[in-house]
Amino acid sequence: MGMGVGIAVDLELLNKYVAVAEEAAISAGKLIQTSFYQDKAVEHKGKVDLVTETDKACEKMIFDHLSKNFPSHKLLGEETSSVNGKIDVLTDDPTWIVDPLDGTTNFVHSFPFVCVSIGLAIGKVPVVGVVYNPILDELYTATKGGGAFLNGQPISVSDQTALGNALAATEVGTARDVQTVDSTTNRINALLFKVRSLRMSGSCAMNLCGVACGRLDMFYEIGFGGPWDVAAGALIVQEAGGQVFDPSGKAFDMMSHRVCSSNSHLKLAVVEALKGHC
Amino acid sequence: MGMGVGIAVDLELLNKYVAVAEEAAISAGKLIQTSFYQDKAVEHKGKVDLVTETDKACEKMIFDHLSKNFPSHKLLGEETSSVNGKIDVLTDDPTWIVDPLDGTTNFVHSFPFVCVSIGLAIGKVPVVGVVYNPILDELYTATKGGGAFLNGQPISVSDQTALGNALAATEVGTARDVQTVDSTTNRINALLFKVRSLRMSGSCAMNLCGVACGRLDMFYEIGFGGPWDVAAGALIVQEAGGQVFDPSGKAFDMMSHRVCSSNSHLKLAVVEALKGHC
Repeated sequence: MGMGVGIAVDLELLNKYVAVAEEAAISAGKLIQTSFYQDKAVEHKGKVDLVTETDKACEKMIFDHLSKNFPSHKLLGEETSSVNGKIDVLTDDPTWIVDPLDGTTNFVHSFPFVCVSIGLAIGKVPVVGVVYNPILDELYTATKGGGAFLNGQPISVSDQTALGNALAATEVGTARDVQTVDSTTNRINALLFKVRSLRMSGSCAMNLCGVACGRLDMFYEIGFGGPWDVAAGALIVQEAGGQVFDPSGKAFDMMSHRVCSSNSHLKLAVVEALKGHC
Repeated sequence: MGMGVGIAVDLELLNKYVAVAEEAAISAGKLIQTSFYQDKAVEHKGKVDLVTETDKACEKMIFDHLSKNFPSHKLLGEETSSVNGKIDVLTDDPTWIVDPLDGTTNFVHSFPFVCVSIGLAIGKVPVVGVVYNPILDELYTATKGGGAFLNGQPISVSDQTALGNALAATEVGTARDVQTVDSTTNRINALLFKVRSLRMSGSCAMNLCGVACGRLDMFYEIGFGGPWDVAAGALIVQEAGGQVFDPSGKAFDMMSHRVCSSNSHLKLAVVEALKGHC
């Protein structure tokens, strides 16, 4: 992210932050797991954009835990902060950026790629990232400068150097206007001539963690919901040795609804493959 | 499949067949699990079509177990029967149809949708189906007339009646000629205006099991490897109360490299949505 803004956050404090975020993620994850195979009451935020009681209950649970421990920190969450399509402005204050249930459509259908995503930004720089998938029991954690971990074990991005051998991921998003859908499928069409294969799992945060642990070699998505989808995952990828950038190759902007990620070897080839399509 | 060919296979015999197939699937699954997070020696069958030592070792292990128990039965397996692109003809004899590792690309990349798929056809009719994903620890089983199960619990397809609320799945396959890729992405484009969202997990057999347990509302794939990708999964869907048909709406032909699946409510809408694109 090329910040160099000289934030002085000591390691002990980061370790405290990540520990509390883990507690919140695991509690919310248990709630997701409990209701995963039950019928869900579904509300529509858009034609195909869904929210459930579990999203809201998880956000409340996470916010309660974070504000109890860090009363001076700000909270930015998908379910409370994106009402009427408005996203709160991100300030330099310590701000927790929370997607209480990333992959809500998967949750509604009991498709196992769902997770809690909790990131902390200070001076707009992500310094803590926690992503927990309670169905696969995968807990991804990272602190700035402290590395990335899956269930406590260090992880790193793949060492793939050839885009033709890369496993890619993307998503089709929730917009269904002709222009967006055509852009989405044209981009997929172009990419299929360059990569080995393509996956769509339905969770932006899990896709970023997939790049972080080397399961995926690249991921891009244009038009996802907001910073809560990427705040934690982006740090986890970076701490696993990977790159997070705008699909155009420019610097990543957490508030832009655009993300691309790969290892360092593949970055230029990924940007080249998407050129003219984003 | 509308057979009515009057095969007389008693339930006790089917239960014996499925028990032996489960043993074979679990043994092979353990081999897959053991090597899942290790580096793999990869051979190319095509530009993006892969095979590993584990595929071959699993097929040998499964064939050995089946032929020891049922010496008179025929064996049809992806790794031994599709050499040089030739697929053995399916006769009326009891024939085990085996994909020792469905989702080989996922296996190579440690992406958790991989499985062993073992089907038995008698008189060309699938009568036993076993699909085992050792990473998610999901064992799907079915016998003709005996129902479908996930880890021993009965499963059934979703009760979704509106295609607009459906979670769909497909795959991009392994052909990378312009005509095939264009057909694939045009089909996805058309479908995105009709369904809630789309997933691509990289395993045909797991997608069929996803329909069987209601995790997915529909799945289609055109151009997959061979009958071993669908022999077990198709029976599991049918025994879970679902439909398996050609994407055109015609009868399913296991040897055609074309499959579509949904619950009974959605079948006509699915065929309508794919019309002109398959």
